[in-house]
Amino acid sequence: MDSLTIDRPLDMHLHLRDGEMLEVVAPLSAAHFSGALIMPNLLPPVSDGKMLREYGERIAAAVGEESFERYMTLFFRSDYDYDFLSSLRESITAVKLYPAGITTNSEGGVEGFDIAELSETLEAMSELGIPLCIHGESNGFVMDREAEFIPVYEKLAENFPHLKIIMEHISTKESVEALDRYENLFATITLHHLLITLDDVAGGLLRPHLFCKPIAKRYEDREALRSVALSAHPKVMFGSDSAPHPRNAKEAPGCAAGVFTAPIALAALSELFDSHGALDRLQAFVSDNARRIYDIEPPAKSVELRKEPFVVPERFGTVVPMMAGEEIGWSVVKVTQGGE
Amino acid sequence: MDSLTIDRPLDMHLHLRDGEMLEVVAPLSAAHFSGALIMPNLLPPVSDGKMLREYGERIAAAVGEESFERYMTLFFRSDYDYDFLSSLRESITAVKLYPAGITTNSEGGVEGFDIAELSETLEAMSELGIPLCIHGESNGFVMDREAEFIPVYEKLAENFPHLKIIMEHISTKESVEALDRYENLFATITLHHLLITLDDVAGGLLRPHLFCKPIAKRYEDREALRSVALSAHPKVMFGSDSAPHPRNAKEAPGCAAGVFTAPIALAALSELFDSHGALDRLQAFVSDNARRIYDIEPPAKSVELRKEPFVVPERFGTVVPMMAGEEIGWSVVKVTQGGE
Repeated sequence: MDSLTIDRPLDMHLHLRDGEMLEVVAPLSAAHFSGALIMPNLLPPVSDGKMLREYGERIAAAVGEESFERYMTLFFRSDYDYDFLSSLRESITAVKLYPAGITTNSEGGVEGFDIAELSETLEAMSELGIPLCIHGESNGFVMDREAEFIPVYEKLAENFPHLKIIMEHISTKESVEALDRYENLFATITLHHLLITLDDVAGGLLRPHLFCKPIAKRYEDREALRSVALSAHPKVMFGSDSAPHPRNAKEAPGCAAGVFTAPIALAALSELFDSHGALDRLQAFVSDNARRIYDIEPPAKSVELRKEPFVVPERFGTVVPMMAGEEIGWSVVKVTQGGE
Repeated sequence: MDSLTIDRPLDMHLHLRDGEMLEVVAPLSAAHFSGALIMPNLLPPVSDGKMLREYGERIAAAVGEESFERYMTLFFRSDYDYDFLSSLRESITAVKLYPAGITTNSEGGVEGFDIAELSETLEAMSELGIPLCIHGESNGFVMDREAEFIPVYEKLAENFPHLKIIMEHISTKESVEALDRYENLFATITLHHLLITLDDVAGGLLRPHLFCKPIAKRYEDREALRSVALSAHPKVMFGSDSAPHPRNAKEAPGCAAGVFTAPIALAALSELFDSHGALDRLQAFVSDNARRIYDIEPPAKSVELRKEPFVVPERFGTVVPMMAGEEIGWSVVKVTQGGE
């Protein structure tokens, strides 16, 4: 197969930032995706109706004419009650939980995972049918953080059986194995965790543009991720975790975590799926699974890709994308909005 | 104890580079150390008598008046024979073996470790009493490379029982455990592997100035290294592996491996040993063990350190040192040359 049309591609984990950066990156996602789940970790985090509305408007303004659905998320706090969440039900698609201090702008996140303390909020979300997205990492050794967090996922899944819990950007075989242990556990997987291991980040020269959290792991972890992504396991969705930082924040003595993949994601996924004879599973991985899991109906948009070389630009604004200057074997050749 | 005098401190693994960089870094090592084992991985590598002599002269010129012994090493090649090595016996202290492509300027190193192929050279070194220093890493996953290399160390130690083999800059508990399995295995340990883990390199922001090969490992590995360093295990020596790169090669999309520690090493080691109540072992770790293992008699130099804060400069020339701008609790306060 030398071409492929994806119906309503979705990016179920996206950082659009704000201000000038938003202006640069939002149009790039909107150009290829029908919609995206928008992460709330601004400074301050998106945590009330006013912020949701205003951030949504800024995204819409940045996107312009392109049809692109903003699936907004609220930054999790354990004092959200039923009435508060109910009042925002129509404005949000999910709530995003960060353990405190685990990644960019997560300082106000959760410390400890005391079920009693989280119970009112999670019960309310459960009743309202609001999924909980979690950045699941402990504060332990960087290579162990995700695996160490799995008991928390399990405790939450067990205590709130009607709450949909999304293990975000999973990076280990342990998370893949956990996926099927509870009916209400789901996962997103990024492009970069499907492509790289720690060897790509630090095995040769150090590559700051491939540095992310969770950090890329071992080959057996990548294999496990590929096995569920390339088969479009029904509980797994594409979420790029595309996370732009200006170049001077990446090539610096203290380099921020985040890989910018939004503009290359569909081309690189097509190449990966094609090389594994799995192109027929890509539609489910980048759209159908998310539509079913989140029960969403994104705006009509179809993206045609062809097996033609695409040279990744060196920069988008101040941001260096993953694979900058490299060639990907597939290209987005046509995007059609509307119709059906 | 609030002060300490070290007699003839030695750095048994040092990269002095060449040209302008040599001019910057050689005086910094010479200011604090009585001598150092000089790594041969220049471009092209130091691999004959002429290069040894000329590089030695350039080092001497860069060091100037300071008394500082250059313990030169020859870049290992499997075609060195007895006559060749014999002719260089007085010019070298050791031969340094790099697996091909494993670190900075190691392209001409050894591929595979076929005993038959290495035999003539290693027998000759054994007869001539020339120690073999090895950068012991496989081409495997970055966190596993050193542990995977241990069977090679063991094979060499077993096949050449009279050859002193130095496991350079060990970074894992597996290497520490291997140390006592063969009488002819020894090791150097760096300052940075005693201080940091992968968490310091990539657990928070990414820290290119802490990126090195072998990469910093887990807490249990650091503990194992500390146990033999702080007790001054008789087969263990200090070797900084101080490896300067200009700042623009470290803060870049592809950052070179190497931590620059020469000018902070004695102060930071004093602080570390002091904090573990092990100051009385530092003399053995930074000098006596090396003198015994290599059978060398360095020029008289004594370095007095005091428990007084030392703020690490932000730069030495173009090079950013480890702990740039940070405070170390101990300082070098006086260096006395000559006498006895």
